[in-house]
Amino acid sequence: MAHWVRFEQGGTVGFGRLDPATGGIAIHGGDLFTDPAPTGRETRLDDVHLLPPTAPGKFIGLWNNFHELAAKLGAAIPAEPLYFLKAATSLLPSGGVIRAPAGYAGKIAYEGELGIVIGRRCRGVGEAEAAEAIFGYTCVNDVTALDILSAEPSFPQWARAKSCDSFGPCGPAIATGLDVPALRVRTVLNGRVRQDYPVADMILPPARIVSLLSREMTLEPGDLIACGTSVGVLPMRPGMVVEVVIDGIGTLRNTVAGGEPA
Amino acid sequence: MAHWVRFEQGGTVGFGRLDPATGGIAIHGGDLFTDPAPTGRETRLDDVHLLPPTAPGKFIGLWNNFHELAAKLGAAIPAEPLYFLKAATSLLPSGGVIRAPAGYAGKIAYEGELGIVIGRRCRGVGEAEAAEAIFGYTCVNDVTALDILSAEPSFPQWARAKSCDSFGPCGPAIATGLDVPALRVRTVLNGRVRQDYPVADMILPPARIVSLLSREMTLEPGDLIACGTSVGVLPMRPGMVVEVVIDGIGTLRNTVAGGEPA
Repeated sequence: MAHWVRFEQGGTVGFGRLDPATGGIAIHGGDLFTDPAPTGRETRLDDVHLLPPTAPGKFIGLWNNFHELAAKLGAAIPAEPLYFLKAATSLLPSGGVIRAPAGYAGKIAYEGELGIVIGRRCRGVGEAEAAEAIFGYTCVNDVTALDILSAEPSFPQWARAKSCDSFGPCGPAIATGLDVPALRVRTVLNGRVRQDYPVADMILPPARIVSLLSREMTLEPGDLIACGTSVGVLPMRPGMVVEVVIDGIGTLRNTVAGGEPA
Repeated sequence: MAHWVRFEQGGTVGFGRLDPATGGIAIHGGDLFTDPAPTGRETRLDDVHLLPPTAPGKFIGLWNNFHELAAKLGAAIPAEPLYFLKAATSLLPSGGVIRAPAGYAGKIAYEGELGIVIGRRCRGVGEAEAAEAIFGYTCVNDVTALDILSAEPSFPQWARAKSCDSFGPCGPAIATGLDVPALRVRTVLNGRVRQDYPVADMILPPARIVSLLSREMTLEPGDLIACGTSVGVLPMRPGMVVEVVIDGIGTLRNTVAGGEPA
């Protein structure tokens, strides 16, 4: 089990492994997915600016992938991933501020989700190989501008509603070696638990998602797949603190901008 | 006016400017968008493998952006870009083969489009600054698996139907210095002209698209925006040759796989 973080320090992007003994980061070199090698140097968390732990070519988000939410919505159980794409420019690290776009005064909702990080290029793979292509897991908050999503009756605006800058909080780390079916996703808004659902309630589990996506689309190292959310999604108000907590991964903590001018 | 191409030669990715005198490529170094510098070396087009002319972080596609098609569909004229995102892994160079994903036997349609290539990072810019952030233009074929798009009544699958590997033909070059409103987009299928529409019929012209997108989403150098298509979209059959031709840019030519096993 390891926890990998990306960071910026003195204008340079680096990555490393959290050191449970010191609470710092053991800085690594090479490529995270192919040949991460310890440099022997360590830095304190307080001395770096955390980045989203991956810089994906694709940021994929699933819709309707939990039985409890499907039952609540009266939605059919899908046999294949139903997904949208989020712009990678929406990514926000833990600690970052979620900001509505200028001029948008509508509702903004959190969606706490488990994120899959791909470690190996794959295309047309079965579930066993797909499982091996998964590098690890992170926390994702799939932030959504609800009033944009449904503003145009002729064209639901999934990509736009979910791709605004800062609408892709992700982190704090990529965890490897997890017992994934045992995980729970909790979303905590201003200290109150609003989502608390078991990953085991997923309709399509991670290896099946990766296998099915790879039949049509090559997946590449760093690609990020948010596995969909379950019940308990609510709008956030300015100034609120939203946390997506997955024990074994960590806490992704963000603040909603307080309504100051952009 | 210049035509920029990207290519692979001997395992290395390079870029350069088409040399009208020789018909070859004047190889450049540096960054295409900030400081392209001639190396003094030239290569023949036949000696390289053309790549899509840009490697975008975001590949955005507009829906319903031409008056003639909107009138035909009875769609309202949008005041803002209605868009989906295509996975960048769908990109295919001119000369590449469009392949349906394994197991898909439904219809695959071409959509000939003008593509905007961003040259400068921009966020929240007005139209004048947006115009300056546009580096140039290319041809895009926004290939779509029609039977995937509408397979699930509860969730139109725009991202999936348009993101399959090879569904993003783009090229052959990025042209700069064009008189954009004077351009026409022609799509030619097996030698028959099937689309032939004026760019001037666009509902939201390029600088307005870039300005409006940038209010919510930071645009970055290399980002690709397909401006939407007009009337004349048809399915393609195996073995067909499809060309998107924009005089002043060039011809994007692709073949549809002949139904051989994937």
